[in-house]
Amino acid sequence: MSFAPDPAFAAGSIAAAEWPLCHVRLQDDARFPWLVLIPRRPGLVELEDLDPATRAALMEEVVRAGALVRRLAPEPVDKLNVAALGNVTAQLHVHVVGRRRDDGLWPDPVWGRPGARPLEAEERARRLALIGAEAGALVRDGAG
Amino acid sequence: MSFAPDPAFAAGSIAAAEWPLCHVRLQDDARFPWLVLIPRRPGLVELEDLDPATRAALMEEVVRAGALVRRLAPEPVDKLNVAALGNVTAQLHVHVVGRRRDDGLWPDPVWGRPGARPLEAEERARRLALIGAEAGALVRDGAG
Repeated sequence: MSFAPDPAFAAGSIAAAEWPLCHVRLQDDARFPWLVLIPRRPGLVELEDLDPATRAALMEEVVRAGALVRRLAPEPVDKLNVAALGNVTAQLHVHVVGRRRDDGLWPDPVWGRPGARPLEAEERARRLALIGAEAGALVRDGAG
Repeated sequence: MSFAPDPAFAAGSIAAAEWPLCHVRLQDDARFPWLVLIPRRPGLVELEDLDPATRAALMEEVVRAGALVRRLAPEPVDKLNVAALGNVTAQLHVHVVGRRRDDGLWPDPVWGRPGARPLEAEERARRLALIGAEAGALVRDGAG
């Protein structure tokens, strides 16, 4: 069995990068800077399905995603929201979302609420370029 | 500056255990088996405020909490929901919630929704005893 992201992710997000552990997707929602990390291992559902070293690597990619989400955001992020839910799509994945007090949903969580606003082409391209440049910079620095 | 849990946590949860890293609270809501982990370090807001080794320790306590949540649940858990949000109470904390397809909110997240139902005294005592027994078992096994 090999890894593939659940096809359900394609409805709301765009493949953006491959990090050492995770397939990284950009959520297609202009309201929030939002990445989804999917560990590239088949058959995962819960965090406990990963061994401790891989869980630690996932945590580090979550922190990396948080820093990147801050750079994707058109305006400063007030709080990062990190969650592994999986009630809709069971394949293990972690959301990293930048929230602002004026984002329209604050302080409620972003999941299970209507109102997603697809990214316009220019903004989508800007975000994807930032994600690609971040990965490239890490490779050049020898950390990727 | 020393650690203390934000007083806001007292409104919806009960101090239940002290693990190596986290102050552990039982959410006072009969609808869900639900623990809240608060790393016992002052001044934390985001995961990035912890060093990598401590983040890995937090991840391991999240997994430990997931196993315990499954044991607290009166009926089998279908999915664990893990989240570090902090939009309401900024002090870094991680929710670990056991969800069932018939829990009334599925597949929506539990946060930002009304309807909490305080634990009856007997059920609260049962859950607290299980949490205490789990910590005791780990100490006896030399893993705590």
